[in-house]
Amino acid sequence: MLTVFTEKHRLRNVKTELSGGELVPPFECPVRAEHILERAKTVELGNIIAPQEFGLDPIYGIHDKGYVDFLETCWERWVADGNKGDAIPYMWPTRDLRQVIPDHVDGQMGYYSIGADTSISDGTYEAARAAVDVALTAQKAIADGAASAFALCRPPGHHASANQYGGYCFFNNAAIAAQAFLNQGAKRVSILDVDFHHGNGTQQIFYGRDDVQFLSLHGDPMDSYPYFLGHADEQGQGKGGGFTENYPMGPGTAYDKWGAAMDDACRKINVYGPDAIIVSLGVDTFKNDPISFFKLESDDFKRYGARLAQLNRPTLFVMEGGYAVEEIGINAVNVLTGFEGR
Amino acid sequence: MLTVFTEKHRLRNVKTELSGGELVPPFECPVRAEHILERAKTVELGNIIAPQEFGLDPIYGIHDKGYVDFLETCWERWVADGNKGDAIPYMWPTRDLRQVIPDHVDGQMGYYSIGADTSISDGTYEAARAAVDVALTAQKAIADGAASAFALCRPPGHHASANQYGGYCFFNNAAIAAQAFLNQGAKRVSILDVDFHHGNGTQQIFYGRDDVQFLSLHGDPMDSYPYFLGHADEQGQGKGGGFTENYPMGPGTAYDKWGAAMDDACRKINVYGPDAIIVSLGVDTFKNDPISFFKLESDDFKRYGARLAQLNRPTLFVMEGGYAVEEIGINAVNVLTGFEGR
Repeated sequence: MLTVFTEKHRLRNVKTELSGGELVPPFECPVRAEHILERAKTVELGNIIAPQEFGLDPIYGIHDKGYVDFLETCWERWVADGNKGDAIPYMWPTRDLRQVIPDHVDGQMGYYSIGADTSISDGTYEAARAAVDVALTAQKAIADGAASAFALCRPPGHHASANQYGGYCFFNNAAIAAQAFLNQGAKRVSILDVDFHHGNGTQQIFYGRDDVQFLSLHGDPMDSYPYFLGHADEQGQGKGGGFTENYPMGPGTAYDKWGAAMDDACRKINVYGPDAIIVSLGVDTFKNDPISFFKLESDDFKRYGARLAQLNRPTLFVMEGGYAVEEIGINAVNVLTGFEGR
Repeated sequence: MLTVFTEKHRLRNVKTELSGGELVPPFECPVRAEHILERAKTVELGNIIAPQEFGLDPIYGIHDKGYVDFLETCWERWVADGNKGDAIPYMWPTRDLRQVIPDHVDGQMGYYSIGADTSISDGTYEAARAAVDVALTAQKAIADGAASAFALCRPPGHHASANQYGGYCFFNNAAIAAQAFLNQGAKRVSILDVDFHHGNGTQQIFYGRDDVQFLSLHGDPMDSYPYFLGHADEQGQGKGGGFTENYPMGPGTAYDKWGAAMDDACRKINVYGPDAIIVSLGVDTFKNDPISFFKLESDDFKRYGARLAQLNRPTLFVMEGGYAVEEIGINAVNVLTGFEGR
């Protein structure tokens, strides 16, 4: 399987993450991508290429221009304002507060984000742009005839909505790739999100559409991030009614239950009959993940990779989360080798 | 003028505030109240008494029970979850995320707050409860015949809505006192908020009501906290239409402009004809305030105190913000001595 990777992911290298009331070294850190790349090389997964540049147009197809402009200038404005730490918002327009975009960068950070866990610093925008190119380059490989490809994206994307960042995500790599398939003539695309955390951004982007089916297996939002989306009764709206499927699962969920949900999701994908499948590949379902509560073993990743192969459709794997960095390479690549039947 | 004060304010003593991407010592700190008390003694403002206890019922008159229960148990649950820092949320149900209350304390903190600037720790709930008693004791003094009284509340209250904390506020002391006046027979109460920051919580609580007039002079939300409320076009809704008045003003505003807005607000209070006036007294309008941008001089506080006296109605002063701690006592007490014509 082809892997697309760029060293530019290292530009995403903030100092701090707000966690447990402290500013700690970020869970979403550069070594994650390095370990996955290393493992792909070790198992000789296939060619590893650098991305082409696709520019801003595919991003504008999913994200608001005002949001993109904000991300491009946020760090510069934050520093010009005299701040010393990473750029972290502290106020959000919740409930009956107004959705008016303030002029001040502090207010704009609140408007354009969902939380305080995701710092911004120098290079964040460039890395996020490069991650989109990684996803689109892998998508192009499939459009050009490959049966599968692996977009080793970093930063991840599935928590980013049309105009909000958070959960370590800025641009929704998977959503942008899905739109690329559609723009190139696909009629239907399925996004299967297997990250431990609900892919709220992806769901929000496609919630009213029938040309993208979104399915997510994740920790129950009553107990886990992102807390405010991912319930089983969220099934799409309007024209998109029935095209969203959520499988929230509780603490301690192991492969017996998780794999059954995966089976069900695969059946629903089969019924939908997509021209392409995008797997939002987070491996924080692993038993030792430091910020998650599922109990998958490393071999389970191989098992579900094999299950995905049975769908027998063009499949783009887009890297999302996973924070047990020692095992992240093994677990992520196990899905891909499992998919390849080895 | 009578001052109500309690040492219990010291129980509100968190270690950190998220500001500028760093965890810094909180601007809203115990010495603020001590300096104001000291100044009240120096100028012989009048008797200083401890509050009576009013229990939870007056709080339930303004705040949701679920919110109060959350605040009572938040710190204990946060510590039980293994966290080491102050309790700080990191994810909020913004825009089209769902308003479902999660089970997990991290999610509940996001549901019940507006931001990440306001940490919670041991004693926060007790101090917030005591601040309500301070406000209600001062309110009772007026109900019992005093022309004015000073509730030296800490923590402050005006950013707290029916079910959200933030901006250093937990229970809305001024709103609870306003409801007490109404419950005791008043037909109309005016709340005049002179804190630098818009009193979003107070506005939200009374936005649909005509028995409380809310007027706020504050930094334009396009440029200053709380960013997402306080525009001039917010004038109340439904039965409350016309009973909210906002005076947003830009960076560098000095007394020539600010005092004119105060005059206008006083005229509108006169037209409304309230049985009592509550002044949400923040003195962060001062030129040296570290987190604000107005340019009032210490003498200006005396001037507007005198202006308020011309309204010639029972007047309850409820302490809100002010972070230039060296001058906070002089500025706050200047309003009160100005009111008394000395």
